[in-house]
Amino acid sequence: MEYEKPLFFEIMSYAVHADRDVVDMVSGNPDWEPPQSLRDGLREYADFDQSEFQYAPSEGLRDLREEIAARRGVDESQIVVTNGGGEANYLAMARALERGAGDEIILTDPVYPYYPGKTSMLGGTQRFVPTDDDGTLDPAAVRAAASDDTACIVVNSPNNPTGAVYPEETVRELVAIAEAHDAILVSDEVYDHYDRSGRFSSALSVDSDHRIVTNSFSKTFAITGFRVGYAVFPEQHVEAAKARHMLVNVATTRPGQHAVLHALRNTDPAYHEANRQLLAERVDTFTDALDEAGAEYTDPDGAFYVMARFDGYPGTVANTKALIDDAGVAGMPGEAFGDAFDDWFRFALVTPRVEAAADRLAERFG
Amino acid sequence: MEYEKPLFFEIMSYAVHADRDVVDMVSGNPDWEPPQSLRDGLREYADFDQSEFQYAPSEGLRDLREEIAARRGVDESQIVVTNGGGEANYLAMARALERGAGDEIILTDPVYPYYPGKTSMLGGTQRFVPTDDDGTLDPAAVRAAASDDTACIVVNSPNNPTGAVYPEETVRELVAIAEAHDAILVSDEVYDHYDRSGRFSSALSVDSDHRIVTNSFSKTFAITGFRVGYAVFPEQHVEAAKARHMLVNVATTRPGQHAVLHALRNTDPAYHEANRQLLAERVDTFTDALDEAGAEYTDPDGAFYVMARFDGYPGTVANTKALIDDAGVAGMPGEAFGDAFDDWFRFALVTPRVEAAADRLAERFG
Repeated sequence: MEYEKPLFFEIMSYAVHADRDVVDMVSGNPDWEPPQSLRDGLREYADFDQSEFQYAPSEGLRDLREEIAARRGVDESQIVVTNGGGEANYLAMARALERGAGDEIILTDPVYPYYPGKTSMLGGTQRFVPTDDDGTLDPAAVRAAASDDTACIVVNSPNNPTGAVYPEETVRELVAIAEAHDAILVSDEVYDHYDRSGRFSSALSVDSDHRIVTNSFSKTFAITGFRVGYAVFPEQHVEAAKARHMLVNVATTRPGQHAVLHALRNTDPAYHEANRQLLAERVDTFTDALDEAGAEYTDPDGAFYVMARFDGYPGTVANTKALIDDAGVAGMPGEAFGDAFDDWFRFALVTPRVEAAADRLAERFG
Repeated sequence: MEYEKPLFFEIMSYAVHADRDVVDMVSGNPDWEPPQSLRDGLREYADFDQSEFQYAPSEGLRDLREEIAARRGVDESQIVVTNGGGEANYLAMARALERGAGDEIILTDPVYPYYPGKTSMLGGTQRFVPTDDDGTLDPAAVRAAASDDTACIVVNSPNNPTGAVYPEETVRELVAIAEAHDAILVSDEVYDHYDRSGRFSSALSVDSDHRIVTNSFSKTFAITGFRVGYAVFPEQHVEAAKARHMLVNVATTRPGQHAVLHALRNTDPAYHEANRQLLAERVDTFTDALDEAGAEYTDPDGAFYVMARFDGYPGTVANTKALIDDAGVAGMPGEAFGDAFDDWFRFALVTPRVEAAADRLAERFG
């Protein structure tokens, strides 16, 4: 699978230049406020002594790593603060491949398109395991695909694009598969604060040298532009990961790290609860309209997205553009995420105009 | 040459734990103020609409790229805004190697230690060309070392660690050598605002598809912790570089980009002139003491560093530690920068206590 950025931009550009009002459900940027404490942290930093404008420790500010470590129940030495979840996944996948323990990376289909892109850039081979139509990943299918050539299994829960949340048994089984083949499970959990099912299970809950957990504050605090994330490595891999982080990026931006630290220390859990509630309402509004439209859809337990399939109207690029022109709703074609859902659309619920989009789809297909 | 981070930290740690007062001349963090406009830019950003807290364009904020393009006389489409000069060099060197036009990277000796580290991480082979004792790089020596196996030549002017500033003829000749061997000259110019000779010449002054120029605002605005830099690519390489940037980091931190843009637009040239003047005074103070101590040294035309050699007291790790204990001055051992200067020390002039250090060295060796 080729890296999809051009397709994403093709759709965005088409929507922007459409000759009508269009609801943007293409990108995954939160449209809600970051916590006030995050803005406060940034203001506070602007007045710091100039010495605090210089390099943070390469692996991240000590206080931030300690705060993360305490929350995640890991040792601070296992944490590398990264340039967002993007770098965290890059470091994890690079580490998995550079061990000489296989060059294949198992990915789900549908897939977050950066994973296959990173796989190819790092010289790995992509192998896809299709999920069920509701986004459920069957660990037995992963086990059947795994071999001694498997360096890495990359999963994302809560999932983009399907909204699936993998239960604890699945996570446990995926770690066991990684252990059986000297592979590394990379568990990307950037939507962990957007689990609406209560069933989310972090791979950190399974003690193993064969799993790396990646995360980010991009979604947690609605700051995708800040680029502050982290990865938790088993002790045996952390030095190599830190060396790569140093050689690629030196360190992660310090104002962003301080703002995130301030937000972690001063944000009420109600902030996250309100965001989950907002998304739950949007999911209800949107899926009610999909019911009216007679569409099939993934009923997402987490994250920001709904995948939908309309009878006789497959989610091709051409139909994605037609839907922009005819209905004023911009989604992403399923093919951007692989083969398994290539006749579906993905709609991102990060717009205050979900209801307008829902009405338009109900009218178009109902 | 192995990646030197452990040595750097070994010395830093030794200095911190010394049983006496020590002047830190180890690290290269500016000790002067960033421009007020930069702090203002960060404060301004803290109040922006939440939409501006989301992803910047992967290649960088449009306004920032346009500002850089106008200043550097290049097209905005050639610019990728990076996570500091570190990522800029990583992208440039990766691009040079991935073309299949050789796997050797020519580096100077002494060398900024990240370059050999990056070379090895990217699967390239290191080849060193020694400079003269004053840091002058003889292009004929580079020409003699170059072959069809040469993918890349990496230079840094004004230079860390020697302070050498390469004149226009040298830069022109280096580009010509790159062209002759289908190689790419990577010209790292992060100290360009700290040229005190007036002879600095950017590789951008030579029009060629065989040079990539990297830079950063880390030193320019005394914000090494912000991680905002850029690279200027020839048109034929920019798409591949952007794809790697996207797949490794997605984008560069947005608050940092905005603060830098604000500082570019609102900082008086006097800010830079004052910093150059400050460093010129420190160089005078320090080299006067080195004269008293009977030391040989590089008389730096730019950047933050002086390399010095004391008769009968080579700049080994052991002597670096002894100098901390005996004289209360912490430098870096020359071996951290290669073989050619392995009996020298490097002293960074980014401390208000240069005079105290100078006195101590004059007393120790005078």
